[in-house]
Amino acid sequence: MKQMECVFCGIVAGAAEAEIIWEDDLVLALMDAKPITDGHALVIPKQHSAGLADIVPSVASRMMEVAQVIATAVKESGIRCEGITLHLADGEAASQDVFHSHLHVIPRFPGDGFRMEAPWNGSSWDLVKQSASLIRATFEKTEGLRLEP
Amino acid sequence: MKQMECVFCGIVAGAAEAEIIWEDDLVLALMDAKPITDGHALVIPKQHSAGLADIVPSVASRMMEVAQVIATAVKESGIRCEGITLHLADGEAASQDVFHSHLHVIPRFPGDGFRMEAPWNGSSWDLVKQSASLIRATFEKTEGLRLEP
Repeated sequence: MKQMECVFCGIVAGAAEAEIIWEDDLVLALMDAKPITDGHALVIPKQHSAGLADIVPSVASRMMEVAQVIATAVKESGIRCEGITLHLADGEAASQDVFHSHLHVIPRFPGDGFRMEAPWNGSSWDLVKQSASLIRATFEKTEGLRLEP
Repeated sequence: MKQMECVFCGIVAGAAEAEIIWEDDLVLALMDAKPITDGHALVIPKQHSAGLADIVPSVASRMMEVAQVIATAVKESGIRCEGITLHLADGEAASQDVFHSHLHVIPRFPGDGFRMEAPWNGSSWDLVKQSASLIRATFEKTEGLRLEP
């Protein structure tokens, strides 16, 4: 998708309507136009970043910090909020809908309609250990997979 | 819950078995013992932090950065991973189970058993605007609700 066709890039550029609740140099936070619950917000990088891996790490960091302050603000705002779900879908297989990464900040309360089924896949502890070994081996052989100091 | 009874604090202290894939000064990442999919990892703050608001912002940032590198590592590890779900449950209303905050990094692929129902609650655009106003007003009146410079 060209960035000019990206709805979130349009919002960042001020060319599309949005209810913005936070803006700084790196990120923007806006209300989800189709909220799961009232107060449902999205934190997005200002720079077009299709997937999780495309977000500059310092920007991903800021997204989390902003999600944290929004979570606190929503709880103090009077909007019903007894808990918070943070959710980021990366890729079609994870049901990403808009291909400009966005972190959902979703106020939660009993009976809010949000439902998640994510059952244990039955893996044995041996399989868990094997997954861990594969991931550790990838870290060892991939020099780029390190955090900036 | 006392920190001594906290399973994640036990893992941080080295007193409980875990498959650790990342450790630095601030955070630890380990395999979920009951994975939704193979490669399902958790990123946790080393310091006991029950909820999202309890995590030191610089630690929450680091959690996101580490989730990002783990997501990349899993994709390159050979474990089936066509997408990634990041998920953090804050509070009982959000189905938080272990009260030491943890960010799920979940490899995704079609038919993986993960299912989310999170329908639009029917709010009008006027209600969305109202939520935005309430949150912005909270930011304005709450001096503490600012990011560290």
